Amino acid sequence: MISEIQKIPNLESIKKTHHRIKPYIHKTPVLHNRALNEMTDSRIFLKCENFQKVGAFKIRGATNAVLLLNEAESGTGVVTHSSGNHAAALAYAAGIKNIPAYIVMPGNAPQVKINAVKNYRGIITFCEPTLEARESTADRIIEETGAIFVHPYNDYRIIAGQATAARELLLEIPDLDIILAPVGGGGLMSGTALSAKYMKPGIKVYGCEPENADDAYRSFKSHTLIPSQNPVTIADGLKTSLGSKTFQLISNYVDDILLLSETEIIEAMRFILERMKIIIEPSSAVVIAAVMFNKINVSNKKVGVIISGGNVDFEIYFAALKKQAVK
Amino acid sequence: MISEIQKIPNLESIKKTHHRIKPYIHKTPVLHNRALNEMTDSRIFLKCENFQKVGAFKIRGATNAVLLLNEAESGTGVVTHSSGNHAAALAYAAGIKNIPAYIVMPGNAPQVKINAVKNYRGIITFCEPTLEARESTADRIIEETGAIFVHPYNDYRIIAGQATAARELLLEIPDLDIILAPVGGGGLMSGTALSAKYMKPGIKVYGCEPENADDAYRSFKSHTLIPSQNPVTIADGLKTSLGSKTFQLISNYVDDILLLSETEIIEAMRFILERMKIIIEPSSAVVIAAVMFNKINVSNKKVGVIISGGNVDFEIYFAALKKQAVK
Repeated sequence: MISEIQKIPNLESIKKTHHRIKPYIHKTPVLHNRALNEMTDSRIFLKCENFQKVGAFKIRGATNAVLLLNEAESGTGVVTHSSGNHAAALAYAAGIKNIPAYIVMPGNAPQVKINAVKNYRGIITFCEPTLEARESTADRIIEETGAIFVHPYNDYRIIAGQATAARELLLEIPDLDIILAPVGGGGLMSGTALSAKYMKPGIKVYGCEPENADDAYRSFKSHTLIPSQNPVTIADGLKTSLGSKTFQLISNYVDDILLLSETEIIEAMRFILERMKIIIEPSSAVVIAAVMFNKINVSNKKVGVIISGGNVDFEIYFAALKKQAVK
Repeated sequence: MISEIQKIPNLESIKKTHHRIKPYIHKTPVLHNRALNEMTDSRIFLKCENFQKVGAFKIRGATNAVLLLNEAESGTGVVTHSSGNHAAALAYAAGIKNIPAYIVMPGNAPQVKINAVKNYRGIITFCEPTLEARESTADRIIEETGAIFVHPYNDYRIIAGQATAARELLLEIPDLDIILAPVGGGGLMSGTALSAKYMKPGIKVYGCEPENADDAYRSFKSHTLIPSQNPVTIADGLKTSLGSKTFQLISNYVDDILLLSETEIIEAMRFILERMKIIIEPSSAVVIAAVMFNKINVSNKKVGVIISGGNVDFEIYFAALKKQAVK
């Protein structure tokens, strides 16, 4: 028997995934904004995963992966290396089954991310801030504990989970013409493309990526997996490069990859914060920037955008506010 | 006949006001948050006027005042002096009737506030940043144009409008034990108290105010109207002092005034931004701070809080983000 871990998710398995994880996730709202619609001459629907548990879509995939573990696998717990939202998401998911989640984090991870993992009782092991150190530390934990490794994106269980965000959006707004999602490691992008093309074959699917971390763009155009080398972008969730599985799915199911400059990303984030009064992280602002700055023609179209998360470090802002208060 | 402008709003007139302004305002959502409930051992319901048009409750009162003008009054337009949300709200409201809105603003008003007024086609006259200059400039405009002055809070038409926020909240969650609102000039506070006590006589109503701008507290306790002298607080919407009408209503209908430190206000704002991913302004964070820092006993109670607005100046944050992007 081929297990879920070895198969590209089909419509049926995404449906089952949705049913499986539903009790443990929020059905996030779909919002819209008049000023954004007027500016783009279209109707934009924001699937707000910034309001998801743990503040990001990551919980969908992590929960699916944990719930798919059999009893023998569950006993030993799960392990991952991540400095981002996947770490907290996996810790949350492990909590559902009351099994240990071993999280390998670089010693220089932001305190807010460390706190999020601790909050869900993840067992943190700190390591040097290199991919090599992360991987060898995770390997050592696997050897010592027998825990199951859950990759943040290059895993069909994760991809099937992330696919449920676009699924919910299309169940609510079935007649979308276009759907956009950000591309980092490609888990959300792959899942979005699968759900969209399964549920509405004629729909156009675009990935949005920072110019400064354009591995998906270069890989997509050259039909060759080309990882980024230490990219620098404010969209910190999109620094990751595609994996083998997500590269294959994006090549097959995504219509094009759009690139956004750092300035465009910041402008889009600012627009949403100031006009909609909701917080989206820079990694989500790329999709808003794509429609705001006409990277594709959306005129008179119904456009779905996946807002991936809302975990923003406002340390600078609050430090300034405190200084102002003391004055 | 006594007109709306001369009468303390009763239940019937608040109902009529609600009916009158409904087509022109948003019915804002009532949100809750598990972490906030757990932390306070209560159930907190946030009436989110940060999602209101113009980003604040101010539109309710301004719209009511403009819609109540008779034909003769309408012809000459409206005038106010304000560096805040009331200016944009009045410009918006005047737009409904397509009449001029003359807005007197200090020359040093933040660009974002100036833009908001311009966006709604308010006619701006700049003046020196003193109350005297504002008032004399407004007086000159009234003389020249015959425009009707609309005070930001010391006006029963405004108070009746602001009362509709608490009314909507209580229509949605009728069994609240306690309701809290911020106190600046007292328009929102007066309206909240009237709606609450009319609709649920046993309810407790508290005003929340910065320690650094405690005129309502001192006035309430001493039964004498004592304005603040140039208060300094990050809750810039609450620097205003009570007026004669709002002082009278707050004295009669509010159970107590709670004071919050600058640090408490900042902590509460940060909690809401980080946990709920929504933007509330410091002037709204005072009510969250009141429950977070146990200024009253809310244990096992259902508590309504009026989130007055979401207009935050994130200039510092975005400047830092741009610098980081360029690096």
